Amino acid sequence: MNDKTANLVWHHATVTRARREVQNGHRSGVVWFTGLSGAGKSTLAHAVEEALHQAGSRTFVFDGDNVRHGLCSDLGFSVEDRTENIRRIGEMTKLFAEAGVIALTAFISPLRADRDRVRQLVGADFVEIYVKCPLAVCEQRDVKGMYAKARQGLIKEFTGISSPYEEPESPELAVDTSVTDLDASVRQVVDLLKARGLVPA
Amino acid sequence: MNDKTANLVWHHATVTRARREVQNGHRSGVVWFTGLSGAGKSTLAHAVEEALHQAGSRTFVFDGDNVRHGLCSDLGFSVEDRTENIRRIGEMTKLFAEAGVIALTAFISPLRADRDRVRQLVGADFVEIYVKCPLAVCEQRDVKGMYAKARQGLIKEFTGISSPYEEPESPELAVDTSVTDLDASVRQVVDLLKARGLVPA
Repeated sequence: MNDKTANLVWHHATVTRARREVQNGHRSGVVWFTGLSGAGKSTLAHAVEEALHQAGSRTFVFDGDNVRHGLCSDLGFSVEDRTENIRRIGEMTKLFAEAGVIALTAFISPLRADRDRVRQLVGADFVEIYVKCPLAVCEQRDVKGMYAKARQGLIKEFTGISSPYEEPESPELAVDTSVTDLDASVRQVVDLLKARGLVPA
Repeated sequence: MNDKTANLVWHHATVTRARREVQNGHRSGVVWFTGLSGAGKSTLAHAVEEALHQAGSRTFVFDGDNVRHGLCSDLGFSVEDRTENIRRIGEMTKLFAEAGVIALTAFISPLRADRDRVRQLVGADFVEIYVKCPLAVCEQRDVKGMYAKARQGLIKEFTGISSPYEEPESPELAVDTSVTDLDASVRQVVDLLKARGLVPA
């Protein structure tokens, strides 16, 4: 061991969230879209991302496609596994926020307690958006043919049919996609993020 | 349901990794530091991050501090749990790379098979860096007092003492921190990332 390495000390992070936010020109946080399957969470999250990206922000959308087959591939759809799924997503999005990214999530996340746990974890920069849509409309859209299967009993514990969805009691925003078109929904979300100072007005 | 929402279709991501890389002015990837406890992985990863950040890159360092207490707080140190720990970190860093970030990881990750699985997962932009340091030197440094406890039998399955460390067979780079000082080590890593086109030369 030479002189230079003899004094090696435990080295903490010098690149902080604050420095990353300055570098990026916007603040970071977690924008959490919740709602029934077919309500339009993923569509809205991706459209908001497109708007934010064009405005120069760093963003990432998490949904079933990139989480369920990866980080959470060992989990099923029991209540315990859904809770663990949301816990891991919460922990991961917290690190994305630390990294200066605006993390947008599109998960049904039906249980209030699970969502509130993420809110506690992330802190002030957690923005809950209720993508509201009547069950009948979601079922009529049935984009992925899931409701039909759930009605036939082919999918068990399907939210809204055979498993509960607990509406947010005080989300930062609720958007009803059965009466509001996509452009207007995007505007509402982006305006909220501007009002909260996450992205420049 | 009005006309505009009747045609709602499944919306895929339009903000791609390629667009994020253009926005950031550098490519993204996973820089994986592996080595014994006390070899200097975390110190080196954070120092590399500082250099990259000053050069205008988007970075994030993962280590025990921000992963073991969060995403992997349900895992212990058995072989199975260590494997699951590395799997989750691999999946998460893959998403960070997707998000345009250069993810730097500082975990002992003692098993070759675990590291190779992450390499497979991440693909071409996985850069393995062996932070090499003789066990005797790591033990002498004993920054966190862990080796003393392991020798006393107070910590079980401690890598290098009571649990194996499998050296990388063909890492992209090996840095011996017992003979190379921190500045020179950082330079070697940054030069490698430049040579691979991850960051501008």
